[in-house]
Amino acid sequence: MIKNDLFLRALKGETVERPPVWMMRQAGRFLPEFMKIRKKYDFFTRCRTPELASEITVQPIRRFGMDAAILFSDILVIPQAMNIEVEMKPDFGPYLPNPVRDQKGVDTVVVPDVDVELDYVMQAIKATKEELNNEVPLIGFAGSPWTVFCYAVQGQGSKTFDKAKEFCFTNPVAAHQLLQKFTDTTIAYLKAKVKAGVDVVQIFDSWGGMLSPVDYQEFSWKYINQIIEALKDDAPVIVFGKGCWFALQEMAKSNASALGVDWTITAQNARYLSGGNITLQGNFDPSRLLSPPSEIKKMVHQMIDDFGKDKYIVNLGHGILPNIPLDNAKAFIDAVKEYNI
Amino acid sequence: MIKNDLFLRALKGETVERPPVWMMRQAGRFLPEFMKIRKKYDFFTRCRTPELASEITVQPIRRFGMDAAILFSDILVIPQAMNIEVEMKPDFGPYLPNPVRDQKGVDTVVVPDVDVELDYVMQAIKATKEELNNEVPLIGFAGSPWTVFCYAVQGQGSKTFDKAKEFCFTNPVAAHQLLQKFTDTTIAYLKAKVKAGVDVVQIFDSWGGMLSPVDYQEFSWKYINQIIEALKDDAPVIVFGKGCWFALQEMAKSNASALGVDWTITAQNARYLSGGNITLQGNFDPSRLLSPPSEIKKMVHQMIDDFGKDKYIVNLGHGILPNIPLDNAKAFIDAVKEYNI
Repeated sequence: MIKNDLFLRALKGETVERPPVWMMRQAGRFLPEFMKIRKKYDFFTRCRTPELASEITVQPIRRFGMDAAILFSDILVIPQAMNIEVEMKPDFGPYLPNPVRDQKGVDTVVVPDVDVELDYVMQAIKATKEELNNEVPLIGFAGSPWTVFCYAVQGQGSKTFDKAKEFCFTNPVAAHQLLQKFTDTTIAYLKAKVKAGVDVVQIFDSWGGMLSPVDYQEFSWKYINQIIEALKDDAPVIVFGKGCWFALQEMAKSNASALGVDWTITAQNARYLSGGNITLQGNFDPSRLLSPPSEIKKMVHQMIDDFGKDKYIVNLGHGILPNIPLDNAKAFIDAVKEYNI
Repeated sequence: MIKNDLFLRALKGETVERPPVWMMRQAGRFLPEFMKIRKKYDFFTRCRTPELASEITVQPIRRFGMDAAILFSDILVIPQAMNIEVEMKPDFGPYLPNPVRDQKGVDTVVVPDVDVELDYVMQAIKATKEELNNEVPLIGFAGSPWTVFCYAVQGQGSKTFDKAKEFCFTNPVAAHQLLQKFTDTTIAYLKAKVKAGVDVVQIFDSWGGMLSPVDYQEFSWKYINQIIEALKDDAPVIVFGKGCWFALQEMAKSNASALGVDWTITAQNARYLSGGNITLQGNFDPSRLLSPPSEIKKMVHQMIDDFGKDKYIVNLGHGILPNIPLDNAKAFIDAVKEYNI
């Protein structure tokens, strides 16, 4: 069905001629064609208008020809649909004016009917699938329950998410209730996304690395694994845990199809810790895209040599930065396509 | 000479009745007696007035009886002495109005005579040694060249220090010149500190974990190792690299007396990666001090069991948070003193 199925084959662990490539946050930020749309429409209008979300999603594919598209959206559409107010402040990022900090707050959070509350996402998926015309697979994503919890409790971005952790450590009963509500909603949401047409789902645990290995199991992994178990027969699941190297061994035992890793781990260590059998995705330092294009190409080839071309998806170790020159992003994608020729 | 030499013995790897304990950032922040001084004097006045710096240094020892004191100061006194303007903005943190961003900027940075430019630190050490009256050892510290570089180039704190990394990746020649200047100054500074009376030195590589393993060797570890080699005959050197688990193997081969680790690594992994022979220091999650005191005590005992009581210094995995209740900090220290009784 999908003409370029390199990404799907890598997720199955099949032998490929070269690894597939895409970039986290490829839809948006650094693209001039995106910046034009951004000037006209605010953040949530872009997310909620299927024509805009689908246009933004396919822009990088048109320009660079990655092997997968990822739907333009945000992890915070979930709490927003759950009766938690979410604003996106320019030059500041997410801002939640009424963060959840106690049992009373947890009680006001609702598990919604995602087909109603998040219908605009499903419409965006349908529009995108039409645009993509089966050229490449489409990825749908969600934040991990812990990462969504971090924003819902902290109320904004943070270097330590100390208020989110404080809530867990001083009121674990209420914290677990909230995490379970996020988990239940995320499962329903991702199932609806698959039904609407996404081929693969990725869970972003951006703040899992804030937790100790023991606390990670209790407050993050337990819930991610519920999602994997619920989704495993619907679509391949990729789990990306930033700073979560310490949990790779446990993660590799799950039914996830692939694990994303950030740039602070060597390919050798990532393979060792994940047991060598599961597909890995990553892990180019996003700041290294500021190196000259010729150097980027060399480093990408080295990275593929280090991970091995099979059971591997080339990606960055976190989202692309807004200040990356187009030629440098192109060098990254081209280097993968030129591999093994 | 020093009455309580538990800390010095642990640094030598000797068998001890219980591990020593201190807390990163124990001088300041969460102590009411510090907050009184803070109301009256601004940040650099506190650093530059020997009576204030020494009073702040001994306050936590008086209240909790840790096994080591650490001189109240800041890692940014070094760039400040090198012709780089540094301000400390309330509710913002360090702010450097003229960050170093090119070769011209690097050329204006001077390697100073530390005995002149940083004499106030040496006076603070002498005053503190008198106050301490040989009860416990005194630690002097410096930032790693990379971490100081991060602030000097970025101009302020950052989640990614992308401008500092951009400078390294686009102008490595100038970046290495600046790193070498910080290294030369740090060596002279730490030697002067030992001469003035500190018993141990600690290097804080707070932002080493922003780099990939390969880049870490080139832009951070190389310079830290120069400092270790220069200081090894003067005093025991502790290196704390936040997020630098991936470099532990390399670090353990150096002449450092101990390695600090953050809370994202298990004791078992830390021992494994560091080879099992070097003294380790850490690694209680600072946010976990928000748990009830009885739980803190249990977790501390578990942590000592996991690291083993020898070749081990109990500490946090990063600095103590400002909002930690006194009873909780006390529970942390007491738990160590009650171990093995």
